[in-house]
Amino acid sequence: SVTLFGVLDARVALGRGSIADRTQLASAGTNTPRLGVRGVEDLGGGMSASFWLEAGLFTDDGQGSGSNANNQASGSGPAVAGRQGLVFNRRSTVSLSSGWGELRAGRDYIPQYWNLYYADPFGNVGVGNPMPATYTFGGVNGFGGPAANVGVYASNTVSYFTPGSLGGFFGHVQYYFGENPQNGAATEDDGSGGGVRVGYASGPIYASVATGRTKYAAGDNRQSNAVATYNFGVAKVGLQISRDKKGPLTGKGWLLGGWVPVGAGQILASYSQYETTATGNPEGKKLALGYIHNLSKRTAVYTTWARLKNSGGAALALNGAATAPNTSSSGLDLGIRHSF
Amino acid sequence: SVTLFGVLDARVALGRGSIADRTQLASAGTNTPRLGVRGVEDLGGGMSASFWLEAGLFTDDGQGSGSNANNQASGSGPAVAGRQGLVFNRRSTVSLSSGWGELRAGRDYIPQYWNLYYADPFGNVGVGNPMPATYTFGGVNGFGGPAANVGVYASNTVSYFTPGSLGGFFGHVQYYFGENPQNGAATEDDGSGGGVRVGYASGPIYASVATGRTKYAAGDNRQSNAVATYNFGVAKVGLQISRDKKGPLTGKGWLLGGWVPVGAGQILASYSQYETTATGNPEGKKLALGYIHNLSKRTAVYTTWARLKNSGGAALALNGAATAPNTSSSGLDLGIRHSF
Amino acid sequence: SVTLFGVLDARVALGRGSIADRTQLASAGTNTPRLGVRGVEDLGGGMSASFWLEAGLFTDDGQGSGSNANNQASGSGPAVAGRQGLVFNRRSTVSLSSGWGELRAGRDYIPQYWNLYYADPFGNVGVGNPMPATYTFGGVNGFGGPAANVGVYASNTVSYFTPGSLGGFFGHVQYYFGENPQNGAATEDDGSGGGVRVGYASGPIYASVATGRTKYAAGDNRQSNAVATYNFGVAKVGLQISRDKKGPLTGKGWLLGGWVPVGAGQILASYSQYETTATGNPEGKKLALGYIHNLSKRTAVYTTWARLKNSGGAALALNGAATAPNTSSSGLDLGIRHSF
Repeated sequence: SVTLFGVLDARVALGRGSIADRTQLASAGTNTPRLGVRGVEDLGGGMSASFWLEAGLFTDDGQGSGSNANNQASGSGPAVAGRQGLVFNRRSTVSLSSGWGELRAGRDYIPQYWNLYYADPFGNVGVGNPMPATYTFGGVNGFGGPAANVGVYASNTVSYFTPGSLGGFFGHVQYYFGENPQNGAATEDDGSGGGVRVGYASGPIYASVATGRTKYAAGDNRQSNAVATYNFGVAKVGLQISRDKKGPLTGKGWLLGGWVPVGAGQILASYSQYETTATGNPEGKKLALGYIHNLSKRTAVYTTWARLKNSGGAALALNGAATAPNTSSSGLDLGIRHSF
Repeated sequence: SVTLFGVLDARVALGRGSIADRTQLASAGTNTPRLGVRGVEDLGGGMSASFWLEAGLFTDDGQGSGSNANNQASGSGPAVAGRQGLVFNRRSTVSLSSGWGELRAGRDYIPQYWNLYYADPFGNVGVGNPMPATYTFGGVNGFGGPAANVGVYASNTVSYFTPGSLGGFFGHVQYYFGENPQNGAATEDDGSGGGVRVGYASGPIYASVATGRTKYAAGDNRQSNAVATYNFGVAKVGLQISRDKKGPLTGKGWLLGGWVPVGAGQILASYSQYETTATGNPEGKKLALGYIHNLSKRTAVYTTWARLKNSGGAALALNGAATAPNTSSSGLDLGIRHSF
Repeated sequence: SVTLFGVLDARVALGRGSIADRTQLASAGTNTPRLGVRGVEDLGGGMSASFWLEAGLFTDDGQGSGSNANNQASGSGPAVAGRQGLVFNRRSTVSLSSGWGELRAGRDYIPQYWNLYYADPFGNVGVGNPMPATYTFGGVNGFGGPAANVGVYASNTVSYFTPGSLGGFFGHVQYYFGENPQNGAATEDDGSGGGVRVGYASGPIYASVATGRTKYAAGDNRQSNAVATYNFGVAKVGLQISRDKKGPLTGKGWLLGGWVPVGAGQILASYSQYETTATGNPEGKKLALGYIHNLSKRTAVYTTWARLKNSGGAALALNGAATAPNTSSSGLDLGIRHSF
C-alpha cells in the first residue's frame, strides 16, 4: 500500500508597504505545496512498519525546497537560483509502530514547531502567517535556527510517539543529532537537541504544550509554547502563547484565532503579536481575516487579508513588500488549493 | 485519478564540424525526457480541478533541468555540474475548468513558444531542431530569454484557455509576473509579460498565430509566429513564419516541414532558415531528414540526419560539434524513445 | 505496468578513532535508500521495452545524491549543502530486450563495480563496507573515479546483457562516452571507457570476473576483480579478489565473507584487506560482523560491528570518526530497513 500524495497551492499575492509594493504569483496561501510518497506494512501481531517521504515544492516555478544535513549553518548552503531540485525536506522517515506507540527515525517536524500549528487558523503559511511563527521559526532577530528550515524541521531525528489510546492524552519526544566529530571543540554539540510535546484532545477540547532546545556554542535556541482550542460548534476559538530564547535574547508572543463555518466554507480570523528583547524591543502586531470556499473535499478557493503594525524599530512587511521601521504593511492573497 | 507519466529518450548523437567533431549519448532526440504526475478531479456541475507537475530529465545521466523563479537572469543560476535535481521546470500548474474554459496558474509553456511546436516535424528537439526555435528560444544572438529556460516556459503565470467547443477555434492568453518590488527602479517590471495564441483546427486543417512580449529595461523581448499544417493523407505539410525582436535586434525565419506515414513508421523532413540584424546579418539554413519506426504506441526507434549552413558570420554547429564561422556542420541521431 | 519502488534505511552509527569519535543518524546500513520508477512494455514477438529511473536519497535528511554528466571531474561539482535534489544517479536507462538479450542505454552501474557486490555480505554499504570497495571505488589514494560516483556508476553508457538462458552462463559488456569534443587535445578521450563481466551461476555455485578501463590523459583507471560464492545450506561463503591500477599506482585486495541463516535472520561476517603502492604501501584490514533480523520480507532491523586496522601510513576511520595513521578504528550500526 504505497500512496502518492500532494498539494498544489497558488495565490496572487499583493503586498503593500511604505517603501515598495509587490505583486507575485506565490505558493502556499493556505497549505505548503508538496509531493510525497508514503506507505504502511502490516507486520502481524499488532506491529507495522511505515515510511513517509514528503518534498516541499513551489507551485509558481516548480522548484523544490532545501534541507539541512546537520541542523547547523554549515548544513544548509544558499540555493542556486532556479536550480533547487526536489528534496524530501518536509519529512523523510521510517517507523516501527505497535501497541506501545511509534518509533520514528529520519528528518521530521520538531515537536516545538508542530505544536504551534494547532491554534493558527492560517496554518502558519500565507499572508495570515501569525507573528509567533514568523519570529520563532522565521529567523527574525536571530530566532529560529541558524539556517533555512532549521527550527521547523530537524534532520537526524529519533522520535517516540505515544499510541492513540491513552484516554485523550498524547505525547511526542524527539532527539536529534548534530553529528559533529567529538574532538573537544566548543562547537562539538552544535545542532544536537530535542523537544517534547504533550497534550489532551477530547470532543471539543484540544490543549497541548511543547518545549525544545537546540545546542549551539554561540547560544542555545529554546522554544516553548502552549496552545488550546475549543470548538463551540458555531465557531472554534484558539489561543497560543510562545516564549523563546536565542542566547541572550528573549522573545514572547501570543495569538488568538477563530474558525467560523459558513455553508461550504469557513471564515478565519486571528490576532497575534510578538516582541523581542533586541535593541528597541521590536514588536509586530498582526490582524488577519480570511475565507476559504470548499469546491470539494480536495479543492478550495480562498482569500486572506492581513495588516501588520511594526513598533520598536521592527520593519516587517507582508507578501514581499518593503516598509520602513515602525510603519505598517498590508497584504492580500487570492488563491486556489488542490490536494490529491 | 492521479497519473504517473513519463518519457525516456536516448540517442547516440554524432556531430561534425570544421573545428571539432563530437560523439555523445544524448537525450531528447524526438521528445524531451520527463517524469510527471497529473490528475483531474470532477467537481460536479461541469466543473473540474486539475494539476500537472512535469520535470524534464536527462536519460543519459539521470539529472533534472532547472527552472527560473522570476523570468529574469537573477532567477536562474548556473547549474552545479552533476547536482541538478528534479525540478518541475516543464510544468507546475493548478487549474479550474468548466464550460467557460480553463483558468490555470503556475509555471507553464508560453503561448508564443508552444505555437512553434505545431509545424515542426522534429518537435523542436534533437539534431533536427529547426532554425527558428534555435534562435528564437535558444538564446542565440541574445534572442530568447536572458537566462536558461526563459523563453520556452515562464514562471508565475496566470492563463486562460478557451473551451474545446468553439467550432474549431481556440485561444490561450497568458500573463506572467516578474515579481520585482515596485520601488520606481527602471527594472521594476523586468520579467513581466504575456502572450496570446489563437487558432483554428478542423479535419485536415490546422492554423494558429501567437505573439508575446517580456519586459526588460535593457530591451523588451518580442516573439511572433504563425504556423499552418494541412494533412493530405499521404503526407502532412507544415509552414511556420517567425519574427522576433530583442531590444534593437530583429530576427526572422521560416520553416517548411513534412510528415509522411510509411507502414509502422513516419518519414520526417524540414527545411528552415533564420536571419538576424546582428553585425554581419548572421544566418543559418538547415535541412533535416528523419525516420521514426514505431514498435508500439509507446516505443519507437528513430534516426535523424541534419545539415546546417552558416553565413554572415554565424558559427552554429550540430550535436555539440564546433565549426568555424560561415562553414557547415552536420549531425546524425540514432535513438530510442519510450513513454509511459 | 509502472512500478513505484524504494528503500529507506536509517541507522544510529557510532564511530571510534584515536582523534575523534562520532555519533550520527546515518543512512544506508544494509541498503542504499532510494526512490524509483520502472516499467516494462511487452512489444509482442518475444520483444519488450523497459525503463528504470532510480534516485539515491538520504533517509536522515531527505536529500538526493548527485550524478556526473561526462565521467570526468568537470561533470561533478560540489554539492551545495542542504540543496541536493533528487537525481536518478543510481540508474536512468531505457532498454530493448528479446531472445538475444538486452540492449540498454543511459546511466547505469559499471560491470566492474557491480561484480564486487556479489561476494560482500554487507552489500558495499554501512560500517561493514569492505576494504576493496572502500579503496577501488571510494577514491582513496586516487583510486576510483576522479569525482564523486564515477567508478560505481557511469553516465552515457550503452550496454549489452546476455539473455537468461545460456545454461548458467551470463555476460555484460558496456561502453561509455566521455563526450569531449574531438579536437586533438590530449584529454579528448577522458571519461570514455568500458567494461565486461562474465560469470556462471547454477544451484549453489556462483562465480564471475569483471574488468574495465576508463581513459584519462592523467592516467587510465583500470579495475579487475573476481568473485565466487558457494552455498553449503547451513552457510554461504564468498571470496573476492581485486586488482586495480590508477596511472602508476597499483592496488590489490581480497575479501572472505559468510552468510549464516538463523531463524528469521541472518548472521553476516567478512574479513577484507587492501594495499596500494602509494608511499609507505598503506594498507587497511577489516573485520565485520552483523546480524539482520527480518520482521517481514520488506522490513528488517539490523546491527553491524566492524574494526579496521591501518598500517603503512593509512588513516581510514569508520562511521565518520577520525584516527591517526597506523591506528585502529571501530564502529557500530544499529538500524532499520524498509523497502516498498
